[in-house]
Amino acid sequence: MKIIDGKKISKIIKEEIKNEVDKIIKNGGRAPHLAAVLVGSDGASLTYVGSKVRSCKEVGFKSTLIKLSEDITEKSLLAKIEELNNNDKIDGFIVQLPLPKHIDEDKILMAVNPNKDVDGFHPTNFGKMALNMETFISATPYGIIELLKRYKIETSGKNTVVIGRSNIVGRPISILMSRKENPGNSTVTLVHSRTNNLENFTKKADIIISALGVPDFIKSNMVKNGVVIIDVGITRVKDESHPKGYVIKGDVDFDSVKLKASYITPVPGGVGPMTIAMLLKNTLLSKSLKV
Amino acid sequence: MKIIDGKKISKIIKEEIKNEVDKIIKNGGRAPHLAAVLVGSDGASLTYVGSKVRSCKEVGFKSTLIKLSEDITEKSLLAKIEELNNNDKIDGFIVQLPLPKHIDEDKILMAVNPNKDVDGFHPTNFGKMALNMETFISATPYGIIELLKRYKIETSGKNTVVIGRSNIVGRPISILMSRKENPGNSTVTLVHSRTNNLENFTKKADIIISALGVPDFIKSNMVKNGVVIIDVGITRVKDESHPKGYVIKGDVDFDSVKLKASYITPVPGGVGPMTIAMLLKNTLLSKSLKV
Repeated sequence: MKIIDGKKISKIIKEEIKNEVDKIIKNGGRAPHLAAVLVGSDGASLTYVGSKVRSCKEVGFKSTLIKLSEDITEKSLLAKIEELNNNDKIDGFIVQLPLPKHIDEDKILMAVNPNKDVDGFHPTNFGKMALNMETFISATPYGIIELLKRYKIETSGKNTVVIGRSNIVGRPISILMSRKENPGNSTVTLVHSRTNNLENFTKKADIIISALGVPDFIKSNMVKNGVVIIDVGITRVKDESHPKGYVIKGDVDFDSVKLKASYITPVPGGVGPMTIAMLLKNTLLSKSLKV
Repeated sequence: MKIIDGKKISKIIKEEIKNEVDKIIKNGGRAPHLAAVLVGSDGASLTYVGSKVRSCKEVGFKSTLIKLSEDITEKSLLAKIEELNNNDKIDGFIVQLPLPKHIDEDKILMAVNPNKDVDGFHPTNFGKMALNMETFISATPYGIIELLKRYKIETSGKNTVVIGRSNIVGRPISILMSRKENPGNSTVTLVHSRTNNLENFTKKADIIISALGVPDFIKSNMVKNGVVIIDVGITRVKDESHPKGYVIKGDVDFDSVKLKASYITPVPGGVGPMTIAMLLKNTLLSKSLKV
């Protein structure tokens, strides 16, 4: 059994990005510039955005954090986005989700210029991904592909089961895994809340990618020997014995499943650390597409 | 066993569309207007476009056929498309594929205004479909969904196997069948050229949607009793005993598989006739979205 070390790989990717940035600067160019829009003061969102900004600094990117009040109108937010769309000094930007309830998230995402949509959430970028055209692939599925690539895990002709059909993980990774690409070329089954006898599918899977959000959902008896496990679940579970009062749990019962797995991502330290690295990679791509 | 009669259903849909058009005219509106761009004089393309134009007449649409020379430059074709994008009198248009080799198909499809892309081929529309937003769904997958709906075939929780991962049939129908919609909510496996032991998947399928293009590929021993068969394959097979010198064959060995199927589409007369009806439906939708 091999642990897929997302922390290590994400560090390597950041170093690679830093080298690219150094080259750009050396050649007289300007550093890539990522902006993040944060509406309100949700604790988790603040943490995420904060760590994105810190990572920009690490790799030599310029970053701009735009903090907006919780009660901003949809119209004002749209105006802000238009401003970012038109600002030539910004290569890419993200709007941190979730947004307050009075704002239509779909409308906001549609307003982002697809050429600056480094989150890959705009339908145009999603469609390009599905149609195998060059585009920004959203961070979590992109991170999974990158982990499979770096660990040289064979995916062609394998039976891959993706659990969960969300727009940001399950759906896109199910498409990516079955594209005529490497990694890819898998026979993918997408299972979800309406699936009957889910374990009939997981038991036959060579690769399981779980993005369900139910702690310890996948037990040892639901998988076969040699399975590759990519655990995207991140759930806070109360644990008074811990100083923070909680622990982070994945979808997979790690301690038992690891005994059967050939490769497995830990939670935390698996897919999680990859997402920011891939966001930075998209921003670098956006910069280079413009030059 | 029930035959899924695409010819009959497409007729009903056309009548429904005609009734809508009559209402629009009665209320002082103008008829929906579909334009078709045909480059060169490929025989099959001429036939397809001709029958699209005829169908427009049947339902009371205005149609415009734009015939362009085989040796038109990419630039001139792009200019033509820009003209159609800006023509307020045209609700939707299609560019008949394939295009001559000196023209970049992707570039042409990207140039079509997504709001007029009634073929649903533009990445923006493909992405919206995948993200479950309102959009133009391309004709063949849309036609399959409509057949399942009209025959009240249960898809929720069923195991659906889609054969073939093309951008115009396999990929989109695999997504549509697993969306949180009705029809939809299926557990979908997308199998393709790299799949090992394809019959392991087809044997367990409640619903098989085949878009492979290999005549008589699916035999009776590859399916289970009660299976629902949607056959998207259309291949000309030489047959000297026929006046035309060929017969049209589907992917499914109809005569043997029908004995086990609960529902089955014939070829021809199944999915085929639905495509033009759904193209007309998209054009009507485009008109109504503009009003």
